[in-house]
Amino acid sequence: MNMSWSYQAPLREMRFVMGDVLDAPAAWAGCPAHADLDIETASTVLEQGARFASERLLPLNGPGDLAGCRLDADGRVSTPPGFAAAYQAFVEAGWPALAAAPQWGGQGLPLLVDGAMREMLDACNHAWTMYPDLLHGAVETIAAHGSAELQQRYVPKLVSGEWLAAMALTEPQAGSDLGLVRTRAEVKADGSVRVSGNKIFISGGAHDLTPNIVHLVLCRLPHAAPGTRGLSLALVPQVLPDGSRNAMHCDGIERKMGIKGSATCAMRYDGATGWLVGEPGRGLAAMFVMMNSARLHVALQGLGHAEMAAQNALRYAQERHQLRAPRRPEGATTGADPIALHPAMRHVLLRLQAQVEAGRVIAGRTALALDLAAHHPDADTRKAANARAGLLTPLLKAQLTRLGFEGASSALQVFGGYGYVHEYGIEQSLRDARIAMIYEGTNEIQAIDLVQRKLLGDRGAAFEALLDECRAEVQLCDPTPELQAFASALAEQCDAAARGVAALLQRKDAEAVLSLAQDAMDALWWLLNAWAFAVSARAALRVRSRDAAWADAKLARMRYGVEWLLPQAALHWHRILGSDRNLPELESAR
Amino acid sequence: MNMSWSYQAPLREMRFVMGDVLDAPAAWAGCPAHADLDIETASTVLEQGARFASERLLPLNGPGDLAGCRLDADGRVSTPPGFAAAYQAFVEAGWPALAAAPQWGGQGLPLLVDGAMREMLDACNHAWTMYPDLLHGAVETIAAHGSAELQQRYVPKLVSGEWLAAMALTEPQAGSDLGLVRTRAEVKADGSVRVSGNKIFISGGAHDLTPNIVHLVLCRLPHAAPGTRGLSLALVPQVLPDGSRNAMHCDGIERKMGIKGSATCAMRYDGATGWLVGEPGRGLAAMFVMMNSARLHVALQGLGHAEMAAQNALRYAQERHQLRAPRRPEGATTGADPIALHPAMRHVLLRLQAQVEAGRVIAGRTALALDLAAHHPDADTRKAANARAGLLTPLLKAQLTRLGFEGASSALQVFGGYGYVHEYGIEQSLRDARIAMIYEGTNEIQAIDLVQRKLLGDRGAAFEALLDECRAEVQLCDPTPELQAFASALAEQCDAAARGVAALLQRKDAEAVLSLAQDAMDALWWLLNAWAFAVSARAALRVRSRDAAWADAKLARMRYGVEWLLPQAALHWHRILGSDRNLPELESAR
Repeated sequence: MNMSWSYQAPLREMRFVMGDVLDAPAAWAGCPAHADLDIETASTVLEQGARFASERLLPLNGPGDLAGCRLDADGRVSTPPGFAAAYQAFVEAGWPALAAAPQWGGQGLPLLVDGAMREMLDACNHAWTMYPDLLHGAVETIAAHGSAELQQRYVPKLVSGEWLAAMALTEPQAGSDLGLVRTRAEVKADGSVRVSGNKIFISGGAHDLTPNIVHLVLCRLPHAAPGTRGLSLALVPQVLPDGSRNAMHCDGIERKMGIKGSATCAMRYDGATGWLVGEPGRGLAAMFVMMNSARLHVALQGLGHAEMAAQNALRYAQERHQLRAPRRPEGATTGADPIALHPAMRHVLLRLQAQVEAGRVIAGRTALALDLAAHHPDADTRKAANARAGLLTPLLKAQLTRLGFEGASSALQVFGGYGYVHEYGIEQSLRDARIAMIYEGTNEIQAIDLVQRKLLGDRGAAFEALLDECRAEVQLCDPTPELQAFASALAEQCDAAARGVAALLQRKDAEAVLSLAQDAMDALWWLLNAWAFAVSARAALRVRSRDAAWADAKLARMRYGVEWLLPQAALHWHRILGSDRNLPELESAR
Repeated sequence: MNMSWSYQAPLREMRFVMGDVLDAPAAWAGCPAHADLDIETASTVLEQGARFASERLLPLNGPGDLAGCRLDADGRVSTPPGFAAAYQAFVEAGWPALAAAPQWGGQGLPLLVDGAMREMLDACNHAWTMYPDLLHGAVETIAAHGSAELQQRYVPKLVSGEWLAAMALTEPQAGSDLGLVRTRAEVKADGSVRVSGNKIFISGGAHDLTPNIVHLVLCRLPHAAPGTRGLSLALVPQVLPDGSRNAMHCDGIERKMGIKGSATCAMRYDGATGWLVGEPGRGLAAMFVMMNSARLHVALQGLGHAEMAAQNALRYAQERHQLRAPRRPEGATTGADPIALHPAMRHVLLRLQAQVEAGRVIAGRTALALDLAAHHPDADTRKAANARAGLLTPLLKAQLTRLGFEGASSALQVFGGYGYVHEYGIEQSLRDARIAMIYEGTNEIQAIDLVQRKLLGDRGAAFEALLDECRAEVQLCDPTPELQAFASALAEQCDAAARGVAALLQRKDAEAVLSLAQDAMDALWWLLNAWAFAVSARAALRVRSRDAAWADAKLARMRYGVEWLLPQAALHWHRILGSDRNLPELESAR
């Protein structure tokens, strides 16, 4: 029995989502930046990416977890054996430039394709992928808000991957509340700034992959306003333009639950030299440009873990024989059956697959919205796409990172005792996946963002547009007998969501709204799943003539989602619509 | 800010559950074995236990995780520094004998008190507690089924803790399916057996805590029937009565996700000498005597982790200030508020506390049933108590171990980025807690046991008796205005459960029943919680004159459970009552 951790990139699923479900080529045709792209080209890129991920990164994943990172007495950080060589190969193949603009040397591919690539990298080695993961955001931030000189000096080297980047936001007292940041910056006569302060939890703040690391440091100028309005953003490179080391030090690396191959650094800036990116006091605004895409990336980490869990659990369950199933395989008389035949395991496998596949559709839809928001020639289209991306992003980030963790835990359960042992891979996946629920805005912060900014902020306008798209899908499915169950389930979710969001909009009390934020997030996620099940089923039916077995299996999985998963939404709408429930005061806590 | 992991034993809660909620003294008075026990004595024992757990075991917990166990070339296993000394102190204080019968040198305390002690040990150091955890089961098994000679030779030394025990069941091909066990035993002329075979995942199979380790090995005699009916149980000591080492070897210890201080051994028996415990072919039956109490113990591991999570999350949330809460503390004008005031965190804290407190009541009720089943003079009472324990045990094992894991994950989320770092303790608790969902019968096996044996096995008789107790509680609560919400919530759960279990009993198809096993388990757990909320609230009201603030806070937490948690049951009954849902065939899996 081959029980070792393995990865078959879900290339067919990815192509199905891009081409058949989302009809991305139609969107690309409307954007000059992507007009030349077709599904064949995108698929070829992803095939090469799959090879890199599974051949170069997966073999380093388990050993990297055991070796971890090391900090020597001089503050130098070593990454696990093989990490640096894999990164060199990554750079030489041009992968860092995938989604970057051609003007900076990038390949200009849409986030939809870039996202599929990231899912594979994350699935095979979350810790390693942390290092290049921040490149896109740093490039976006500097390109949008940096001076021409900063752009020329840093963006091309970041796009090529010659240098890496780090985001230095968190401080011991300032996590979710960046308004509490204390790191100081003083403007010098030459226009540069001197940065002093301590940062913690800085992923890739120091490592041995590149000769320079470009830090984007959230800081405060003298006499700045308190809170977030007083924050500025400084670019602080590890190596200064004259080749000297900057006055910044890695004082420690964290001993963490997972992603042990990723160096999580405590950084000290001792009057380090930097340059402001964007206006003084507009530091957070300068970073908003990357927030949606950064959260999409974190969501894709969750999706990668969940896909890994789903496929390895299935493989193991088909090979492991224990006990007799209530419906035995034809011809079985003695002995035990594959555990995949046992109802409890079939639930786990189907639930994981249905959620992973729906999650990939929703992630793709979000990426497509971000691509349209960035590249569509029509301003109204860009605005609508931006609102859609803004609405979907907190949902996607919180729910797919939860799926990554809970999916890994489900798969671990399928593996039984073996799942608890390191060499079978899944326990590491569970540990690695857990961090994504915390960083880049905790999942609780995502729920607050969803209700306060994305639902109440525009009085439900973006939500109404989403509802229109869902109701249009109901109309598309309804005439086809095989799709009527999908249509009616989606219609039911739409009605519940319309009532529920209206009730939420009518609440005046911030406390009451916030106490329902998690329910709103869960309920709307099931609406999105209902849409994804329907649109996927309709696409599967369209391509059924090419491969009936594949299409029928897809339809069965999506039907499982409708019948067994969607009923979970009712609880959350029930809580939102109920008016008799109050959250007790803290004093009730023992 | 003091953020280090700490433990305040929930002694007040334990006393409240034993004395006020369950009225254990009334039950003890009816059992000659416990007639002399009172709440004061039990509380004194637990106070001493709390001191041992928090002063001796907690300091070894984090370091033990980092050090792990080591295996040398000769097959000798070293436990982490301090483990052996703590075990000596445990033995000297007489703790191993707590629940053992006085005839063997034990103190004869009920499992209800012993269970509270175990909860504290598990909370402070799950890995260490694994070593003595098996003593009770081994003693029960040998005392019930061993020959007089085996009893005399082994039981007193196990009761005193001078020797430890290990259960050797699992083999690579035989996990949940013990019928596949291949280890052989041959009867020799002197009545002893020669045992040969390989076992894996043997907790405490080898270690340096005691000079002898008594293995109970599941094995198969020549020409035995296939499957579980052909299994025998052999007592195989590491050191033979003549002082020589037995032919058994630890070939490896697992590198695990958690409980790293507990040695999980791959054992090889090379014609090792042993003696049968019980009749040939009745090996599983010999172990059934300990199954309910062993599963209770695993459930208590989950409860210990959940309690640890709840109290540490609360402490951290009260100390950590981030962002402003929608309802600020009186007088707050600037700065950030304790995160405990934010609705998302209050939900986490209250949910954890309500579930932990209800879980402790249900665990106590189960332990009380086991005590009555073992010690009550009336046969009918023993029989009814045994049926009740049998019904509650799979629910308790699966749900409290899940609570231990999910509660640790919730608490980790409260700690944010700090939660992901080893030194804050919670990430280890999450890792340690995860195993309890797997061993001693996976949680899926518990669900199968629940529906097939405990519900369908007696056509719902034990369930009806439980329902009677719940409906009696409705009557007790209903006349009191403050308790009416508890009464009506419990009545609603009773009605739903009666309908749901009736529907389950009518299903003819094993496949259909098994596909609903997890829903039955979840739904019945909420019924038990509804009962626990009600009975706890009623008890709190009774003791309100002693401490009104404490009682009101308890009532608020129980009300939170009724209002925010119990609505989760509806989904599961909905699935059970629905007839339109089929679990797709495996072929639908991608």
